[in-house]
Amino acid sequence: MSDIKYSFGLWTTGWQGVDPFGDATRPHLDPAENIRKLAETGAHAFTFHDNDVWPIDATDDEKRAAIESVKAAAAETGLVCEMVTTNTFSHPVFKAGAFTSNSRDVRRYGLRKVLRQVDLGAELGATTFVMWGGREGVEYANSKDLGTAHARYAEGIDTVAAYIKAKGYDMRVALEPKPNEPRGDIFLPTIGHAIALINTLDNGDIVGVNPETGHEQMAGLDYTHGLALALYVGKLFHIDLNGQNGPKYDQDLVFGHGNLLSAFFTVDLLENGSPNGTIAPYQGYRHFDYKPSRTEYIDGIWESAAANIKTYELLAAASKAYRADAAVQAAFEKAGVLDTTTTLAEGESFESFLAEADENIEDLGKRHEGLVHLHQLALNHILGAR
Amino acid sequence: MSDIKYSFGLWTTGWQGVDPFGDATRPHLDPAENIRKLAETGAHAFTFHDNDVWPIDATDDEKRAAIESVKAAAAETGLVCEMVTTNTFSHPVFKAGAFTSNSRDVRRYGLRKVLRQVDLGAELGATTFVMWGGREGVEYANSKDLGTAHARYAEGIDTVAAYIKAKGYDMRVALEPKPNEPRGDIFLPTIGHAIALINTLDNGDIVGVNPETGHEQMAGLDYTHGLALALYVGKLFHIDLNGQNGPKYDQDLVFGHGNLLSAFFTVDLLENGSPNGTIAPYQGYRHFDYKPSRTEYIDGIWESAAANIKTYELLAAASKAYRADAAVQAAFEKAGVLDTTTTLAEGESFESFLAEADENIEDLGKRHEGLVHLHQLALNHILGAR
Amino acid sequence: MSDIKYSFGLWTTGWQGVDPFGDATRPHLDPAENIRKLAETGAHAFTFHDNDVWPIDATDDEKRAAIESVKAAAAETGLVCEMVTTNTFSHPVFKAGAFTSNSRDVRRYGLRKVLRQVDLGAELGATTFVMWGGREGVEYANSKDLGTAHARYAEGIDTVAAYIKAKGYDMRVALEPKPNEPRGDIFLPTIGHAIALINTLDNGDIVGVNPETGHEQMAGLDYTHGLALALYVGKLFHIDLNGQNGPKYDQDLVFGHGNLLSAFFTVDLLENGSPNGTIAPYQGYRHFDYKPSRTEYIDGIWESAAANIKTYELLAAASKAYRADAAVQAAFEKAGVLDTTTTLAEGESFESFLAEADENIEDLGKRHEGLVHLHQLALNHILGAR
Amino acid sequence: MSDIKYSFGLWTTGWQGVDPFGDATRPHLDPAENIRKLAETGAHAFTFHDNDVWPIDATDDEKRAAIESVKAAAAETGLVCEMVTTNTFSHPVFKAGAFTSNSRDVRRYGLRKVLRQVDLGAELGATTFVMWGGREGVEYANSKDLGTAHARYAEGIDTVAAYIKAKGYDMRVALEPKPNEPRGDIFLPTIGHAIALINTLDNGDIVGVNPETGHEQMAGLDYTHGLALALYVGKLFHIDLNGQNGPKYDQDLVFGHGNLLSAFFTVDLLENGSPNGTIAPYQGYRHFDYKPSRTEYIDGIWESAAANIKTYELLAAASKAYRADAAVQAAFEKAGVLDTTTTLAEGESFESFLAEADENIEDLGKRHEGLVHLHQLALNHILGAR
Repeated sequence: MSDIKYSFGLWTTGWQGVDPFGDATRPHLDPAENIRKLAETGAHAFTFHDNDVWPIDATDDEKRAAIESVKAAAAETGLVCEMVTTNTFSHPVFKAGAFTSNSRDVRRYGLRKVLRQVDLGAELGATTFVMWGGREGVEYANSKDLGTAHARYAEGIDTVAAYIKAKGYDMRVALEPKPNEPRGDIFLPTIGHAIALINTLDNGDIVGVNPETGHEQMAGLDYTHGLALALYVGKLFHIDLNGQNGPKYDQDLVFGHGNLLSAFFTVDLLENGSPNGTIAPYQGYRHFDYKPSRTEYIDGIWESAAANIKTYELLAAASKAYRADAAVQAAFEKAGVLDTTTTLAEGESFESFLAEADENIEDLGKRHEGLVHLHQLALNHILGAR
Repeated sequence: MSDIKYSFGLWTTGWQGVDPFGDATRPHLDPAENIRKLAETGAHAFTFHDNDVWPIDATDDEKRAAIESVKAAAAETGLVCEMVTTNTFSHPVFKAGAFTSNSRDVRRYGLRKVLRQVDLGAELGATTFVMWGGREGVEYANSKDLGTAHARYAEGIDTVAAYIKAKGYDMRVALEPKPNEPRGDIFLPTIGHAIALINTLDNGDIVGVNPETGHEQMAGLDYTHGLALALYVGKLFHIDLNGQNGPKYDQDLVFGHGNLLSAFFTVDLLENGSPNGTIAPYQGYRHFDYKPSRTEYIDGIWESAAANIKTYELLAAASKAYRADAAVQAAFEKAGVLDTTTTLAEGESFESFLAEADENIEDLGKRHEGLVHLHQLALNHILGAR
Repeated sequence: MSDIKYSFGLWTTGWQGVDPFGDATRPHLDPAENIRKLAETGAHAFTFHDNDVWPIDATDDEKRAAIESVKAAAAETGLVCEMVTTNTFSHPVFKAGAFTSNSRDVRRYGLRKVLRQVDLGAELGATTFVMWGGREGVEYANSKDLGTAHARYAEGIDTVAAYIKAKGYDMRVALEPKPNEPRGDIFLPTIGHAIALINTLDNGDIVGVNPETGHEQMAGLDYTHGLALALYVGKLFHIDLNGQNGPKYDQDLVFGHGNLLSAFFTVDLLENGSPNGTIAPYQGYRHFDYKPSRTEYIDGIWESAAANIKTYELLAAASKAYRADAAVQAAFEKAGVLDTTTTLAEGESFESFLAEADENIEDLGKRHEGLVHLHQLALNHILGAR
Repeated sequence: MSDIKYSFGLWTTGWQGVDPFGDATRPHLDPAENIRKLAETGAHAFTFHDNDVWPIDATDDEKRAAIESVKAAAAETGLVCEMVTTNTFSHPVFKAGAFTSNSRDVRRYGLRKVLRQVDLGAELGATTFVMWGGREGVEYANSKDLGTAHARYAEGIDTVAAYIKAKGYDMRVALEPKPNEPRGDIFLPTIGHAIALINTLDNGDIVGVNPETGHEQMAGLDYTHGLALALYVGKLFHIDLNGQNGPKYDQDLVFGHGNLLSAFFTVDLLENGSPNGTIAPYQGYRHFDYKPSRTEYIDGIWESAAANIKTYELLAAASKAYRADAAVQAAFEKAGVLDTTTTLAEGESFESFLAEADENIEDLGKRHEGLVHLHQLALNHILGAR
């Protein structure tokens, strides 16, 4: 195995298989046991929501015991806790949202629940705090005032970031966009929307995004393009890798078990950066946010966890061979992908630029960049044929 | 008719019906005649791409004659030119993009073409300059370097904004997002992505967005939510209204002829602002970017143009009645939509907030906001039943 | 209220709000109480799955007591049981399907469970037996043999139909298609696929379809077109009305609370038949298969149930006015919608047909059918403006 | 190269790149030259629409000369014409459909055009006649009577089949479903719908389907499942292979350049039949209906044509290795995929079946079929790692 660092949410392997039409198909998995099994599977780190480890109605003693059990398992296995997040979606209190609920009591409860998890994350050494606002949306227009809802969402996020700064924690916030499900339309539905809101925050410097493969694909968007935009604006703080087959319910398949071609190009960008080096390779954990299919019994949990790593490793190796292939580099060169020139020259004036004669557009329209050929070279590498 | 100001693109009523599988079904429509007919139909303004008015290979004299003809028609009818935009997508030279082409020659040609249209827009009094980068994308990952492509897109937009400032024009730039078609994946696919890039620009203060109803809906996103985010961050500079039936090819139907419920709530937001007044009513032109269906002959152009205005007027009237209905206001009140309180009190400290006892989440989980009832009230108004 | 007969599933108003990310938000609703409340809401009939009324592990006595309670409530309220169906999806035993499970034991258990519910349906007077094979699919290709799976699905359906005949019940089977959720890809994903399989059955004469509004729309398909095909081939045996906003998770909104324009044309077809009378008005129950949103507490159950009927009534009234409008009839006439001529004349020979001179295609290409105008007339009626 | 027989439409490599927003980027390609180049690329057969070879307004002499040129190229290269089809979508006369137009003149013209192409197909030895009714749909409900439209569609198809029989041609008809584009909603939107209508025809025995990869995927449906249903009911008469990225405009990418995992399982089914042999390997041509991307110049036509064959060959080889892998066969066995037992035993009575004790559903719910593991084995083969 490579030196890539893999991470899993405890809620992934711990998922019992409840879906909108079916009951649990697997027994409860103790968090400490979960961590031990993840270590055996090849993970380097784990992440969790508060209520992955203790129930929402746990006493303080029960909660502390649960935390200590997790810490002991981490110490025993060497796994680190790289990220934590808060469950603000399961309990009925959050049925109409947490930070954007029309009820101030709900918003205050939700915010307090989040801040407590920030403290715990810091205690465990987590450097990323993810916020997925799965209930922050509506089914019906005007069931929230859209101006107030965005303002309250911003207030909540900004408060969390301010709290982190006030406490001096080494931690950044990463928002996780999703277009819909469990709400009809969720606020901040894509990477772009999240960044647009972050830019209005007082403490936005420590707030970025945690894009999930399937969430962007549920909107028919290219996940790798989304990562690239987030990287371009300096906001890719964490990633959630999984698999999805286009616009339908959130499938949370194993990474690569949905759009495999797209998964290759995601890995290619993360491992190798962009072809001309403008985007550098990614440094963070490769974090999987998937679900072992409800059809699987206990063995299937670990078979599917391992499948995430296996697929990532295979795609990483294929991406290295692809970049090392002289034919690929020649195709990049022919297509002009390696070029980094700006459109205007340094210091070029509008006057001189506009005074220049137009380019020969008939000839330019006939240039052949060989883009299909370049793509086929990628396929050949993916399919192990070069 | 109300005092709402309507605007149409010359390319809308001028569309001849060429689609991916069919030839033109209608003859060429002279731009000046187009303006006259739009005036008869009830429009107050028009907008255009350069090549809506003259062919890309026109001589300077031909181009000037075409412009003067448009100006004369505008003067004759009283219609104003409120926005202009540039065609950087039809000619083969732009087959792989304009601002993000891997060819510097293409980028320079495209930028020069855009700046010339900025000058013309200023000459005609247009205060908005729309940029739809329909070819700024790819079908195949790595056929553009994603870092360089975003940088060049930003450079191009920033240059246009800088040029407007340098010239002292009273004009703002509005980017028009679209997720795909004619490219497999277009850069800046949604309102959010566009705003995220704008925030990196040196001259981003005069750059905003021009969201199109159908474009957001092609990604399964709620158009009104997108408008609200753009308004919240101060970036809604222009709008393109039309109709679409979800994720499929870009239909450009008459406004309201796709998702009618969503159209009602768009009009409600634009005409009345958000329910508690946090978002103010929209002040700009109601601009239609639709296509008279290819099945229609010449009469159908004007029947469909009129249908946009008719539907908007009916929805605007329904939205006024809806807001004036005491039952609706009571339902807003019950749902908590009118409340504007922040989550934390002014000056509230983290210490005191965290020290407070938790809210009663069991009771809060049982509160009934009456959201379906509120929605049904809207339907009753839409259906003319209140 | 009109004399239209409305029907609801007990699982609709009885839904407690468990979704993939959240726990129940409403208490259990006793089936008999459910029936009484539906009667108050305006329903004429109810429908149910076996496990809507008793748990899967109920003893025979418990089951009989539950049935008698339902029968008593029906007798008391005058509501009839027009349809029954079987839950072959909630219990883990069905995690990989019922009729198409790779396990013969599971298939036999599922089939026996279905046949028992057929008996109960007959006892209660139900004339339709719905089969929704929500788990009859896969997430992963080759996890079922596609030939064998289709054969087993056909065997199961055919056996149910044969059993009905053998018992002499006055009952027909109606298959309910759905493209996905809770399985990645469900077999018989659309109305068309279901009918295609029915045509292979020995007892297909008593097997038809039960199309659900949202299920077809999850595949981006036009629900009314699907109904029309089913009617054309004589297979529309039952309907499930609800609301959906395009390809995403199954929303089960109130009828009309999704695609309102499409809902109008569905009602128009059901109430009035097709414009030229080729399709006759629908005679069956208007059955709602929706879910009261999870945000709603107990009052919201009945507010949302009533909203289905209210919207249907409003659309039915609008459709009557639309058909009665002389301008609409003139637009139908102009568009050629009322014409019923066949393409070839009765007895026309290939020889004479092919010997005929071609039509003037240039002129025919310029004909104007006024389709947008016709559509706008519908909108005007929907919006209460005519 | 393998002994698989590949076929291409002349309209694929001949496509000049006109799209809804752009002009042609490539010059006209002479059909005879097209055939010669296809032969060099590795094709064994070609297919065409009438107007791929001569313009719609060609004289009889021009048409005959064009045909003779095609026949000469076929003779020269050894390529056979395996299928023909008719263009009933490009000319304005078909703007509202051919077989389902409200205009009888249009329907008669369209039908005559189709029958002439049937004659030509027979002359050239084509054994399949494809009918894609791209314009047979609507944008607006009630712009066609849905009963009459389906009846006319059936009449048209049945007439073509009757004509083939009357003439004694060795030819079958294959309908090509598509959900939308260029019409808002096309009739017979999926494989299922087409088969459902075919079952109503007098001459339906020689009418089947020609499913296109991307068309089914535009509705979010699994293409391989669709093929399996068509095979199960004996109606898979032809196939159109290409690539698509989910519900958006019709991309017509190279086969495998969209959903690669799905492409593998399509090839696996076609080459190897279903895992337990219930479905036999496919015998027809592997026909590509793709478009060389508009970005490509002339070299890109042939690079992309070759890419279809290359990808198919690689996937075919991977599928053979996958089936030959003992670990895969063991996983099939464990999952129960190889089993072909029926649910009821031969001659089993309802009485004895119902009298049997229920299976142990708790234990059955805990069985582990290893479906994710099985899928990962496929990925390992696809990625060249086994």
